[in-house]
Parts: sequence; structure tokens; C-alpha cells
Amino acid sequence: MKKAVILVSGGLDSSTVLAMVREQGFEIYALSFNYAQNHLVEIEKIKQFIKPYNVKKHKVINLDLSAFNSSALIADDVDVPKYENAADVGDNIPVTYVPARNTIFLSYALGYAEMIGANDIFIGAHVTDAANYPDCRVEYLESFEKMANLATKAAVEGSKVSITAPLIQMSKSDIVAAGMKLGVDYSNTISCYDPTSDGKSCGKCHACLVRLQAFENNKQTDPIIYV
Amino acid sequence: MKKAVILVSGGLDSSTVLAMVREQGFEIYALSFNYAQNHLVEIEKIKQFIKPYNVKKHKVINLDLSAFNSSALIADDVDVPKYENAADVGDNIPVTYVPARNTIFLSYALGYAEMIGANDIFIGAHVTDAANYPDCRVEYLESFEKMANLATKAAVEGSKVSITAPLIQMSKSDIVAAGMKLGVDYSNTISCYDPTSDGKSCGKCHACLVRLQAFENNKQTDPIIYV
Repeated sequence: MKKAVILVSGGLDSSTVLAMVREQGFEIYALSFNYAQNHLVEIEKIKQFIKPYNVKKHKVINLDLSAFNSSALIADDVDVPKYENAADVGDNIPVTYVPARNTIFLSYALGYAEMIGANDIFIGAHVTDAANYPDCRVEYLESFEKMANLATKAAVEGSKVSITAPLIQMSKSDIVAAGMKLGVDYSNTISCYDPTSDGKSCGKCHACLVRLQAFENNKQTDPIIYV
Repeated sequence: MKKAVILVSGGLDSSTVLAMVREQGFEIYALSFNYAQNHLVEIEKIKQFIKPYNVKKHKVINLDLSAFNSSALIADDVDVPKYENAADVGDNIPVTYVPARNTIFLSYALGYAEMIGANDIFIGAHVTDAANYPDCRVEYLESFEKMANLATKAAVEGSKVSITAPLIQMSKSDIVAAGMKLGVDYSNTISCYDPTSDGKSCGKCHACLVRLQAFENNKQTDPIIYV
């Protein structure tokens, strides 16, 4: 069975990717990161979420991002911005941006893939995010793949690695629709950047607004709890 | 003053790079990694080494590489190989290889550079190592730089980053010669993959043999202590 490393965040996107990759028959090695993010509850969600997916291994890597403490996702003193609707966010890169985050995540995935002999790395990046996060764009991911194939002993010895973002051209509504078809249980996912300590979503951050809109577009009710 | 992020390991190479970059007048932000390597004494060495260099900040990042435990640099049950002389190593990638290590190191450096507004990242990679480590080659470093300039908010907004390996074409002997000219105090560096707990070098691993040969070629005595 072919092995796949999947970056799983506990969010809607990567959870959908997990279901897609499972469908394709890969043996799954899931990789999550504990970077003392304010929305750490997502790690608990992913542990619940993956249970029915026969995941071979789930590694939670402790990530020391204390040098990058300007992001609202990490810092205690930077607030996650709240909006009335998703369109208010605009095209600016928000304070929730974490410097080089996907590059660090994918670098770990690359090392882990080499370690276990996997040629496929999956990430939940997509165009809806790309306007706001440079490390969610196609050209970035293609460039990372090129670099990755020069970086490792495995690649030098001919075992190439693919970085695949199956959601890349999909809107959030498309993603929810695809997940529904695969029977994804979204009650064990969370998207909020600023959840309460007991895991309720705020309903007002960019991530919440985009998520709610996606369920509405699919005429579905988001099964998670909002404050 | 232009800012530079320098990856410093406590070894001979990156210590020489620090002296070179200081000479060029950069404001220096040094970045080291504690990845529970068996040769962790190098972190203590670098703290001593940097003292005279007016380093603006020195960050030691805790790196969780437990998922990659096959390397002799990390694992307790894989021995660092010992040789009679450096030529015995050959061109194979040795068990001291750590999957994606420089990619992870450079990814952190990229995030840190963005955080502090630096456009220059320096790394001590060079051709002597390139035969054995894929992530020390010119084509790898160039590819990483391309990826880096698609990865960050800073780059997207026009503030490009350079990955510079000033030693890249130099032999170990050339590096020692260059460091000597700059007054580098090599007594506060260590290269050994398998030092004793009190910081003595083994003299028999690849890193030690290459280092000793470099001092000998320069008709110098290596000032560190060997068992």
C-alpha cells in the first residue's frame, strides 16, 4: 500500500483531505503541530476526527515558534480580528499570518516522509486562502516540491516526492460539498481562530465566517457549536 | 545597519561564517537549534563563541525531531561511525544524515528573517559536505531561495530574501585559513559528532578527521581537546 503523509490541523480543509486520501487507498501517516497556538483545541478535535479513518500513525510535533510572536495565532497580546461577514477581510495578509508556517510544516512533512518511505505529501491549502496567505498558492507549492526533490537522500537516490493540495482550486463551499459526499463528520472539526476554552467557535473571525457561509451555500447546518 | 540571520551550530564552519558576516558590517541575529542531538555540547560552545561578536540576538529554538529518529546524530541506539582517516568515508550519505534538516533549519531562519525584517540568511554549507549531504549542495540552496521568495508576506510585498553560503566553494582547509585571517578563536568551536559529556572530541568520526586534516594542512594545531 502506498504511504501518504497528510498535514492535519483539525480544521475543515485538512479533515476533508484526509477523507479524500483514505478514499484513494493510501496508508495514512498524519502529522499535526502543537505550536502553542491560541486555538490549540484543534489538536483535540483531530484526535477525535481521525478515529474512523484507520490512520497508521498520527504524530503531533511540538513546534517552538516563540521567535515569531507577532501573529495573532500565537501572541497573547494581539487580538484575532472580528468581522460581520467574510468579504470584509479583503485581500490583505491578516495578523493571523504566521511567518513561514507552511514552509516549516512541509519541511517536517518532508523529513517524516523520507523517514517512513512515503512519496506523497498532502496539504489542505486552497485558493480561497491564497489571497491572504502567500504559502497557500500554487506557485509556492510547486516551488516547494522542486526544492524538496533536491533536499533529501531519498530524492537524490531517485525516490521523488509529490506535494499535493487536492483542494487547491476549490472554494470552501466545494470543499464542504465534497466532504459531505465522502461522509465526513464535520462535528469533529474546528476552524475558529479564537475559540473558547471549552471549544466553542466565535462565529466572527474570518475562519468562522467563511466556514458558516460554506455550509449555508450547501444548504447544510454546520454541526459544531458557536458561542 | 542591514540585518542578517545566521544559522550557527557551534561548529567550525558556521563560526567562520559569523566572523565573515560580522566583517561585512551586518547586524547579526544568530539562530541555533536544540534538537536533542547527541552532540548538544555544541550549543554551549556557540554561546561562548559569539561573545566577542556583538550579536544583536541569539535564539536557540527547541526542535522536536523525534519523528526522525533513525539518524546517528539523534538516536541512542545508532552509533556514529569511526574511521582511520577522512577518505574512508567515501561518497555515501552516512547514518549521521538527518532527514530534511537544513530545510527545517532554513525554514525557521526564513520565518525569523521575516519577523525581524532581515533580507539575508547565511548558512555554513559547503562542497566538502555536499558529497555526503544533499541539502548542502548549490542547486538545493538556490532552489530553497526561489521557494522562500514565494513563501512569505515580506517576499510577496517585494522584500526579497537571499540565502548565502559564503563557504560553498571552499575546502575545510580554505575555511580554517580564512577564519585564521579573521582572528577566529576556534577553541570555542566543536565539530565532533560523538563528543564526551565534558566536551572532548572523539578524533575518529568523519567530522573530527576532516577538521584535524584542515588544521594540519594549514600547519596549525587545532586548539580543542581530543580524547
